Amino acid sequence: MSLTVSERLGAFVAGSDWRDITPAVRREATRTLLNHLGCALGVAGDPAVGAALDVMRACSAAPTATVVGQTARLDAMGAAFVNAIAANLLDYDDTHLRTVIHPAAPVAPPVLALAEQEGRSGAEALHAFLLGAEVACRVGNGVSPGHYARGWHITSTCGVIGAAAGCARLLGLSAAQTAHAIGIATSQSAGTVENLPSAAKNVSVGSAARNGILAALLARSGYEAAPQAIEGPLGWARAMGDAPDTDAMLDGLGTQWEAARNTYKPYPAGIVFHAVIDACLELRERLGAPDPASIAAVEVAGDALLLARGDRVVNNARDARVSIHHCAALGLLRGRAGVVDFEAPAAADPLLAAFRAKVTARLDESLPRGAARVTLHLADGRREEAMVASPRGSAGRPLSDAELDAKFRDNAALGGFAAKAEAQIAAIRAIADAPGLGAMMRLLAAP
Amino acid sequence: MSLTVSERLGAFVAGSDWRDITPAVRREATRTLLNHLGCALGVAGDPAVGAALDVMRACSAAPTATVVGQTARLDAMGAAFVNAIAANLLDYDDTHLRTVIHPAAPVAPPVLALAEQEGRSGAEALHAFLLGAEVACRVGNGVSPGHYARGWHITSTCGVIGAAAGCARLLGLSAAQTAHAIGIATSQSAGTVENLPSAAKNVSVGSAARNGILAALLARSGYEAAPQAIEGPLGWARAMGDAPDTDAMLDGLGTQWEAARNTYKPYPAGIVFHAVIDACLELRERLGAPDPASIAAVEVAGDALLLARGDRVVNNARDARVSIHHCAALGLLRGRAGVVDFEAPAAADPLLAAFRAKVTARLDESLPRGAARVTLHLADGRREEAMVASPRGSAGRPLSDAELDAKFRDNAALGGFAAKAEAQIAAIRAIADAPGLGAMMRLLAAP
Repeated sequence: MSLTVSERLGAFVAGSDWRDITPAVRREATRTLLNHLGCALGVAGDPAVGAALDVMRACSAAPTATVVGQTARLDAMGAAFVNAIAANLLDYDDTHLRTVIHPAAPVAPPVLALAEQEGRSGAEALHAFLLGAEVACRVGNGVSPGHYARGWHITSTCGVIGAAAGCARLLGLSAAQTAHAIGIATSQSAGTVENLPSAAKNVSVGSAARNGILAALLARSGYEAAPQAIEGPLGWARAMGDAPDTDAMLDGLGTQWEAARNTYKPYPAGIVFHAVIDACLELRERLGAPDPASIAAVEVAGDALLLARGDRVVNNARDARVSIHHCAALGLLRGRAGVVDFEAPAAADPLLAAFRAKVTARLDESLPRGAARVTLHLADGRREEAMVASPRGSAGRPLSDAELDAKFRDNAALGGFAAKAEAQIAAIRAIADAPGLGAMMRLLAAP
Repeated sequence: MSLTVSERLGAFVAGSDWRDITPAVRREATRTLLNHLGCALGVAGDPAVGAALDVMRACSAAPTATVVGQTARLDAMGAAFVNAIAANLLDYDDTHLRTVIHPAAPVAPPVLALAEQEGRSGAEALHAFLLGAEVACRVGNGVSPGHYARGWHITSTCGVIGAAAGCARLLGLSAAQTAHAIGIATSQSAGTVENLPSAAKNVSVGSAARNGILAALLARSGYEAAPQAIEGPLGWARAMGDAPDTDAMLDGLGTQWEAARNTYKPYPAGIVFHAVIDACLELRERLGAPDPASIAAVEVAGDALLLARGDRVVNNARDARVSIHHCAALGLLRGRAGVVDFEAPAAADPLLAAFRAKVTARLDESLPRGAARVTLHLADGRREEAMVASPRGSAGRPLSDAELDAKFRDNAALGGFAAKAEAQIAAIRAIADAPGLGAMMRLLAAP
């Protein structure tokens, strides 16, 4: 009898050997963690993180795990919940482009919390995280692109399945138990796109992390799931509206790593706006930081998705993160597009607001998805043009280690950890050789 | 601007006045709790309950709530998880027939746990439970019958929304906060039919209870949800595949009580088999407990659903609960169909097994859903026939208070609480007048 999807994934996760993981894959998993932990540090002072922390403090068992950027410690489920929310709060974290899953947020926090609690080595934690992220991306591949389009917040819905797999590995569950943990997670898979503009999005991401631990603990205690929990006629994929592509879930398991195709955002804006920012940065450099008055008009051309997402009036910070006009203004006027450049003061900055009015967006069907062409009409009559097909951070132009370090430093500074950033970076980059996570997690906590 | 579904439900829940709840509705809510708590007591010794309890003990904050039938106490979320699993373990609990939701399992445990923790009165707890169950049934009405048919375990998926509403009421949240709690719950709504024959079903029911508390706590801390979390284009109902009938969710709020249409199972078998059991009990009485050898053959006629669900070989206890043949054999040979009559020893009983072989099932499209006609072909050539259209416990023939008490006593005895059953019944029936839940919950705990 052939194995079901969760049985295949369970055997893969339980049977994976760290020695078979290539240096390139290990390196990408480490880069993912570095990016992920930096994002969580950056929002340590955000009220949404504080509220989640307060709620979890009231329902935490004895603390065993670090909350990134905080003094308080929580039990593993509580820490996983808050850390997942923080890392994904601004959608500034990692993106598996084929599925638009942010794999680290739901998977890394529960694995790291359990590893800290159980005293596992850095390599064991990194390996379990890699396997969990791989499972999340692969089940996502099998239901994309319909899943997200139908209203499922795929980071949450697939994230809990990956989290369960990663936690099962960390706890040393058997192949059969891991398959059950995965199957149990399918009955906790939730989160809608409708709720994305609200804090309810944070809850589905945090619960994915939290419930991944629960699924693994219950599987360890003998709880089982239906063999075809993922692909069965009344199972996860079909109930959610998808005819699952099980080949996309399973082909090349252990040789083709979806988790190693992860990408990292250089800007905390919607990913389709990154080419606009890059083109404007290029023009600003070419013109030598021009006086705003010297630019009469800015024309941004892009594909239908860019126009649908980003041709809007900016009333607040949320709008700014998905505005063609704001992104263009930042690139040309400020020469940067960091976290503070999308916050309320920047959205209300009169200089930026006046400049946004000079920007028009235009559909150009000939441009590929993710590309943008920016044309400046200068006051002296000249025209300057820049076209970006592969923005920074895309698969074609991945962030370098130095760029990731710089992003981490920016985030650490935002969270109030500038002085510790170099030590934090060094500890995270050395995770695969660390005998335990204690030192790294202590560095990531507030004093 | 007209209110959204969650805003309407939030205003209803926050604004409901106990004095407006009629005696008949209060009585039905109390009957629901009596039935629910008895079911939880009955399986206090089940390994699935024990495993859930062990996992929750390891991640519970300081205990504030009773676990029904157990010595151990847990925090509110932990108690809600275990109590919900226990009450629904055998699907012997309550059924809202229009949706097939078991409303008490996901809603009562979190409300009772919070009420015990917060020192609320019995009336406050009963009222909050009633409102939560009402919300669960109403959102279920708006997506039925497609929702369950597509693979959603509606008790879990709608249960978490009702649980959030009930907990919001118990915690005294405002109308707006209650709407947000409901919206947050939609992003935690999960559970598939594929997983029903496994312990993963328990997890989705338990998590519905647990996450209802989480949604209310987060809403109290300022977390918000999308206004159209339920009915929006990328919201709960549509992501799950349903074009929501918002009238069915909202019409008659506060005057027509869906929660008061609850029904209670007299037998721990699938609800479609109840008419078979009743017809066989009637025939057994008519014939004076006949010798099995005097019955040559048994013909059971029913509609397509009965045949699809119940025409099967019995290999274990799970099969027995959904077997036409086993149910007929119990009614005719044992003259009863209680919990023990569906357990492994009964499924393997050679007398029952031999008799099951005499039973054949036949489709009769003229019979309404839920009805059955049983024809006995006696060894002496005579024929006896009984037809049941409204089985005991159905809407047309609800269990009397005395029958509910008897069911509670049976369950209490199964769980080892025979000596306390009368006191437990009295305490539950008096809940609306109790100044607090302490005394009732202490009676429901193991010494």
